[in-house]
This record gives sequence, structure tokens and C-alpha cells, in this order.
Amino acid sequence: MNTSEGDVVVVGAGLIGLAIAFELAERGASVRIYDRGEPARAASWAGAGMLAPYTERITNEALLAFCAASLTEYPAFVQRVFAASGVDAHLHLDGVIYAAFDAAALEALDRHARALQARGVECEMLDRASAFAVEPWLSAELVGALLKRGEGYVDNRRLGRALVAACAARGVRIEENCAVSVECDARRVLGVRVERGFVPARAVINACGAWAASVAGVPSSCVPPVAPVKGQMIALGVPIGFVRRATWVPGAYLVPRHDGRLLVGATVESAGFDKRVTASGVHELLHAALSAAPALADFAVTETWTGLRPGTPDGLPFLGPTALEGFFLATGHYRNGILLAPATARSIADAVATGTASGLEPFSIARLGTEAALAGRSTRT
Amino acid sequence: MNTSEGDVVVVGAGLIGLAIAFELAERGASVRIYDRGEPARAASWAGAGMLAPYTERITNEALLAFCAASLTEYPAFVQRVFAASGVDAHLHLDGVIYAAFDAAALEALDRHARALQARGVECEMLDRASAFAVEPWLSAELVGALLKRGEGYVDNRRLGRALVAACAARGVRIEENCAVSVECDARRVLGVRVERGFVPARAVINACGAWAASVAGVPSSCVPPVAPVKGQMIALGVPIGFVRRATWVPGAYLVPRHDGRLLVGATVESAGFDKRVTASGVHELLHAALSAAPALADFAVTETWTGLRPGTPDGLPFLGPTALEGFFLATGHYRNGILLAPATARSIADAVATGTASGLEPFSIARLGTEAALAGRSTRT
Repeated sequence: MNTSEGDVVVVGAGLIGLAIAFELAERGASVRIYDRGEPARAASWAGAGMLAPYTERITNEALLAFCAASLTEYPAFVQRVFAASGVDAHLHLDGVIYAAFDAAALEALDRHARALQARGVECEMLDRASAFAVEPWLSAELVGALLKRGEGYVDNRRLGRALVAACAARGVRIEENCAVSVECDARRVLGVRVERGFVPARAVINACGAWAASVAGVPSSCVPPVAPVKGQMIALGVPIGFVRRATWVPGAYLVPRHDGRLLVGATVESAGFDKRVTASGVHELLHAALSAAPALADFAVTETWTGLRPGTPDGLPFLGPTALEGFFLATGHYRNGILLAPATARSIADAVATGTASGLEPFSIARLGTEAALAGRSTRT
Repeated sequence: MNTSEGDVVVVGAGLIGLAIAFELAERGASVRIYDRGEPARAASWAGAGMLAPYTERITNEALLAFCAASLTEYPAFVQRVFAASGVDAHLHLDGVIYAAFDAAALEALDRHARALQARGVECEMLDRASAFAVEPWLSAELVGALLKRGEGYVDNRRLGRALVAACAARGVRIEENCAVSVECDARRVLGVRVERGFVPARAVINACGAWAASVAGVPSSCVPPVAPVKGQMIALGVPIGFVRRATWVPGAYLVPRHDGRLLVGATVESAGFDKRVTASGVHELLHAALSAAPALADFAVTETWTGLRPGTPDGLPFLGPTALEGFFLATGHYRNGILLAPATARSIADAVATGTASGLEPFSIARLGTEAALAGRSTRT
């Protein structure tokens, strides 16, 4: 990459924007990030950090392959961020548990396991005793579980802090609480306008998550149709080590943290930009958690919060170059933004360097121009 | 009352202690209050302010009569506090609704209504249409309701602020965050010891709620066996006026506030002084509220908290003089402390003035010496 061609601007300092900026900076680019709020404090902060493409049951093959690649890249990514920042993001890839509480659920898990094994994904069915041996806090109603080795979780709040520090260490400038609009001519991006004035840039990347559709100044064909999909979460205060692995139960997942917090998530709601924690949201999560694990009853509810995932019409992200030269998209990751940060950062950095899609063709916004894509515009959830 | 005999000290600045201090000060006494924390911030702050002796189904006749008397005194009490403080405590005595969602519950309410009417308590059964007419947000499963006219609620947080201001206006000195022990000789109380030194007092009143058993310095026969009974609460943010009356539904009550908060309470738990909001507590309250009113589903959970009620072995409070001359008890109000503030203040002020029980005989700690009382020491809940 020839940095003399000008700076790169990333709009949006979530995990995606930060990871892209870090990657570009490590490759030698001069990078600025602008965020409307605080870095890594929206969906990046609200998520549970699940790294589980197979548990998410992603059906699109291109997206599944991209998620699997990103999962493979995660250890090296976290290591590079740690090397630059000194902050350990607490990566755990010791498997995800999916618990079954009746025969029908167990049979469905078994079919899922066989399908995964046919793809070469390492997983195994656990009988009741084996499941209790790994996660003894589950309800006595447990009949078995599926353990997907290789999946896991990362502490996304720590990863956010780590990336902010890593970016700073690599010379990235992060500007907070900053309104940004893009400036372009008929052919290509010129830079961004912020309160202080115009900032020229060779490349501008829209990494604004659920807010990506509101970045002003670009042709409508380059505006990604991203809409917020609300997720509510709660945290319980449990003894450290009480839950060992990220565990899916009917209606919720439970993900531990090193400090004893147990995250319970998450609702999936179309509620615009409403970020309220609601009666039904909290009830749904507690009901699912307590049904699967009555042992959680007397632990404290220490936190409740919501986040807004960037949903897209067809469930695929918008990644890569657009019709506007120098303007790139990196949004629409829906439930997989934390998982996809490494692969997104690598691919977008490649695309910025080469000006090509760099393997991101399935995720191009150009797909919306086709009838097939339009037919696929059903629901985000 | 002869104020030259010395000052009165109230230990505990909850609604009970504040109301007593206000009453004594209005009668001309010189009063100090000491509190281990902030005034009116424990159970006085945590409660819902229900003024509903008949809905509480109090079975002890002496306690029921005392509660009924206090309810009758409430409007004048709030008016006097307002006159001294300028703070309106938002008293509502326009009735309490008890909603039934099946035939058996309706039949039980009907029996309850007839029993109350036989006592001269003003109440009426509402059919389904009439119940919806008064509280249209209830579930479509509603089959009828009981409306107890004359019961209601007060905004206990406002009442706390009002009493603090009223006490100040009447010259009461309130000392916060203050450790207190009582000093006495073999016969009578001498005063209290605080960090700054000894404070002589003609009368000392223990109004420490759930902490009343830990007031040091008095003979064990004067230590009330009060223990904390935890209650968890939540608040939803609803449109102002969405709920009009305090409403009991199976498993919870719902009490509105002028600012749009809807309080949902309360669990009843023996958990020592643990004040954590727990998974099962929040789940229980939301489950009860949403079962009775699915319309509440999308409202925000704006607050969760707990309080510790002062429970007693036989369910009756400890009120009035003790074997130690000049040492009085005003604690153990369990779920009825807010309701009982006016009658407690009046009766305790009478007792301090006369040195007699002043009608508080049924609530004397001396009852614990009898076999009958010991046989009644079963459970607090």
C-alpha cells in the first residue's frame, strides 16, 4: 500500500471499524476513525462475544465459510491485538455446549451433530452424565448436549478496550462524539467533513453498524439498507467458574466472564433505535435461564442492557468496495460482528489496498440490484 | 409535655422515626434523630406505599384496628406534614382493586367482600365490564374484581422527603450516618452515645426497622426480636395515568406514581440482610405482572431494588414503653410501616408524654414473656 496516496478514514469505532483501522495501520496506512459516540460502546459492548458460527445455524454457504475463516483467524488476531495493546481479550475456544431437555430436542441436536461431522466440524454428543460432568449447574431435566469443539467466546468489552489501545499504539487517531459526512465527486470519494472542517482521504470505510444507513453524503446506491435489530441482555453475578463454557439452552444462551458475571442473551426484536430494557425482554431471558438452570435463582441480577445489531434484508453483511471509488462498506454483520472482526479487517484492508472485492463478492452491495436479491428481501430476523 | 425534663432522641430516621419526631416536635418537645444511613432510604424508600389493611388480610384484630385507625388518620397526617414542609406526598385513597382471573378466585373475592361488608368496610364486587371500565389495561382473562373504597396508596419516597423537611421546619435535628448506642442505669434510660460524645435524653425511641435488634446498650428484655424480611421490587416506565389505582393481581401488586412509574412488588423472603436483586425475584414479579397484564410487555424496566421489612415472631409490631423507663420501641411493622406511621406517631408521642402504653398494650414487648406468645413464635412470613 502506498500511503502517500492519502489517509484512510474509518467511520464508526465499533469492533469492526477498530479492527479494520488496526489492520490498515499495521500494514503501514495512516488511519483516522470517527465515531458518533464512544469507541466500542454500541453493539460491540452489548454483545456476548459468542464465536459460534455452527451454533448460530448460518445457512448461507458464503457467510458460513467467511465466519469459519474468521473463527480460525481469531487466536492470531487476539494475539496481535494483545502484542500492540497489552490487553488480554480473554479468548476461549474450548467449545460451546447446546443443552437438550427433552427427547425431541436431543434428536434434533443429534441430526445437527451428524450434519456438522459430515462437514468435518469437530463436535460430539454428550449423554446426560457427560453433560453434567462438564456443566453441572444445568437443570435435572437435562437429557443430553452437543459439544462443538473449536467454538467459544471472547470478552468483547475487553476486546474493545484492547483494540482502542492497539489502534493508539499503531498511530491511529480516534475521534469521539463526532458527526461525519462523506464528500465525493461523481466518480470517487474525496474525504469526510467533520466539525473542524474537511479531512481528505483516499479511502473511506463505513463501519457504522446499525447506524450505517445514516452516513450522509454518498449516492443512494452506496447506502446500505441496514436496520437495527434490538437485543436485550442481562448479567447475573455468579461465583467465578460456576459456568465454564458458553451454553445454549432453549430461548437463551449463557456466557461466562472471568469476573463472575454470567451473561444471558438475547432477544431479537425490530424496535427501531429504541434501546429500552423491557418487561417482556427481561422476563423472557430470566424465564429461559431459570427453566434451564433453577440453580441460578438466587444469584443477583447485576446489569441489564440492550444493543442494536445491524440487520440486513437478506441476512448477509455489506462488505467491500462500492460503485463510488474509494468508498467501502463494512456493516450489516447482524449477530456475527464480533466473530467476523478478524476476517472483515483482513478482507477490507485487502480491498482498500487493491481496489478490488478481494473475496468479498458475495457481500457486495451490488447484489441488491438483482431481482434475486430483491426477492430475498424478506425479514431481518 | 414538660420539655424541661430533657430532650427526646429517636434512633432511626425512617418514616416511623420521622413521623414520631414530627409529632413530638409539634407537641413542643425538643427532638433529635440519629440514623445509621440516610433518612427514609431503607424500607421507607423501598416500599410501594400501599395503604390497604383489608387487602393485606390482617387477621389479628388489634393490629387490624390499629391499621384501620391509621388509615383514617392519613389525610390529616399528610396535610399536617404538607403544612410544615410544602411537600405533597401524593395521597390517593380512591380505592384498591383486587383482580380475579378465574371463577375460583372470583368466588374467594366475593366471600372476602361479604366478610368486609359485615364489618362495615366499604367495598364492592365489579363484574368484568365494570372492572375493565376502571382499569382497562388488565388481561382479557379478567373475570371480575373487588374494589375496596377508602384504601389506596401514598408516594412513600415523597412522604419521606416531606417528613424530613417537616421535621426540619419544626426544629428537629437529624443526624445522618451516625452510629448510636443507648446508655442507661439499672432503672431508666439516660441518653445515647454518638461519635461526638454523650447526648442526654429523657426518652429514647428505637425506630430502627429491620435493624432494631442491633441497637446496643439496652437490657436484652428490651431488644426486640426483629429480623429482616426481604422484598424485591421493580418499576416499569408507563404512560402517566395508564394504571389508576393500586391493583392486586395473583403474585404481585401494581401501584402507579405521578411520574409514570408503575411499581410492581413484592417478594417476601428470609435472606438476612442480603439486599441483592435476584434472578428469581425479578422473574417472579415480571411473570405475575405480565400474566395479569400482557399490555405491560413493551414498557421499560426502569428500576429494580430491594428493601428489608422488620419482621417479628408473631407478626405484630413492638410499640410502646419497655421495662427500661424512658426507652420505647417503634419497630416490627413488617409490611405495614408506611400505613402505620400516623397512628404509631400519635401513640408513641402519647406514651412518651404519659409514660404509659397509651393503647399500645397488644404490641408491648412484654408479650414475649408469656407462654402464649412463645407458642406463637412460628414464622415471620
